[in-house]
Amino acid sequence: MHWHETNVTVRFNEADQWGMVWYANYFAYVEVARTEVLESVDLLPNQLVDLGFIAPIIHLECDYKAPARYNQKLTVRLTLLPQDVARLVFAFEIVDAEDRTCMVRGSTHQVLLKSNGTMVYKLKGELEKRIHRLARYFEVGTMH
Amino acid sequence: MHWHETNVTVRFNEADQWGMVWYANYFAYVEVARTEVLESVDLLPNQLVDLGFIAPIIHLECDYKAPARYNQKLTVRLTLLPQDVARLVFAFEIVDAEDRTCMVRGSTHQVLLKSNGTMVYKLKGELEKRIHRLARYFEVGTMH
Amino acid sequence: MHWHETNVTVRFNEADQWGMVWYANYFAYVEVARTEVLESVDLLPNQLVDLGFIAPIIHLECDYKAPARYNQKLTVRLTLLPQDVARLVFAFEIVDAEDRTCMVRGSTHQVLLKSNGTMVYKLKGELEKRIHRLARYFEVGTMH
Amino acid sequence: MHWHETNVTVRFNEADQWGMVWYANYFAYVEVARTEVLESVDLLPNQLVDLGFIAPIIHLECDYKAPARYNQKLTVRLTLLPQDVARLVFAFEIVDAEDRTCMVRGSTHQVLLKSNGTMVYKLKGELEKRIHRLARYFEVGTMH
Repeated sequence: MHWHETNVTVRFNEADQWGMVWYANYFAYVEVARTEVLESVDLLPNQLVDLGFIAPIIHLECDYKAPARYNQKLTVRLTLLPQDVARLVFAFEIVDAEDRTCMVRGSTHQVLLKSNGTMVYKLKGELEKRIHRLARYFEVGTMH
Repeated sequence: MHWHETNVTVRFNEADQWGMVWYANYFAYVEVARTEVLESVDLLPNQLVDLGFIAPIIHLECDYKAPARYNQKLTVRLTLLPQDVARLVFAFEIVDAEDRTCMVRGSTHQVLLKSNGTMVYKLKGELEKRIHRLARYFEVGTMH
Repeated sequence: MHWHETNVTVRFNEADQWGMVWYANYFAYVEVARTEVLESVDLLPNQLVDLGFIAPIIHLECDYKAPARYNQKLTVRLTLLPQDVARLVFAFEIVDAEDRTCMVRGSTHQVLLKSNGTMVYKLKGELEKRIHRLARYFEVGTMH
Repeated sequence: MHWHETNVTVRFNEADQWGMVWYANYFAYVEVARTEVLESVDLLPNQLVDLGFIAPIIHLECDYKAPARYNQKLTVRLTLLPQDVARLVFAFEIVDAEDRTCMVRGSTHQVLLKSNGTMVYKLKGELEKRIHRLARYFEVGTMH
């Protein structure tokens, strides 16, 4: 299983009055990593809509291990957990970019809906092709 | 000139590590007041788009007088400054809800564009009607 | 079990490009409700620190049932789930303020730490008194 | 006059329902650039506090030229405008990272206060040394 990695630096406005990243701000970092991956397989939100689908998050969970602080350099790690059904489950970890201390760890679950709101149970056509490329990237660690 | 007033309470995640509202977070409070007013004259962003227009902000300025803190109760005051041209200039003040100390004071300038991006120089039709109702509200302090 | 309720209106900057509240922005609404409750028992973050403690969130989970939209009026419902150990587990629901459709439902888990970072296993003194008042509020629905 | 430059990519949660960056979110990008510069001269907010000072923003102005969109790569440009008094005036521009189209342009004004709240009119000691290094960086474009 491959983890996609990207780096972010904690911004001043993301820390709370204890100087620690407010707990919901970590999810913006997860989206930085997710965007990079989705862009590489043409599955950015707009591109998904162009195919006639949306992929709302239906479940989120997160464990907080250590607080990140203003200006701290972090590495966001993202992978896709294999599923039997037409669902995208991403696992993420955010670690200190240098000493790799784990700050947070969690997952998001997304379902695939047609634009009319009906659930997608089985992948087909272009959507299937792109999601298989996405899955393969997280298996082998390369787009090719 | 009438000022529309609404109340907000500073949220935990809006204060920075000094316990003061981060300077760009005040604009979310201004939007609370603006939404209330625009809703009452059917000029919410979506409604404006339905009429074939958008109203992007092209200029913002703000003076910071005193810092607001977590859980502080604030009153957001909003008015519309009369203009010769087809432009919306809102002035705002954010004051302590109790002792009325001024925290910030500023203005936003919006132009009116047709959906195709061309500038609106002269108001006509339904757009003119609604913007006149908006202007009148700020002159007389009532929608009727 | 009592649920504390408070109302919020979705702000323009909290909706994403589909016009739906971005999934992590709901937690700011939860904090609005939590602040109201903690204020009433003198357990706001600063007050907790004055007693020599902090209460970091160590776990968060959330299910997303339906999307809230810009300017939608929401009711945030918050309760405290009884625990055997010195831990604060808040459950929350965010529902449409009028038709009570459930938007999101979830929980946050907080541990209590002394300012030096050591875990609190057993409540004592002023901290115990205030947390008992908090728990009692969620049992009986009144502060008295 | 030297401009410090850094790159940011627009995050999903920073775009509004028109897919454009919400106007107050640009200031988070300005802070990314400012943090990089202040770090290099040991003037990060915490370091300033350690010296016995704070530097609140008292004025902000910004012109919006073109909207940035989700996943757009931007270059944030920051410089310091020379002042006769003990005041920090940063000018900023945010441009498309590739074609250099200007998105926004503005400035922030900061005063220097002693921790007790009294205004600093004349720089002295370590504070003067560091602010001179900061000013020199923006004159000559290097820290050495």
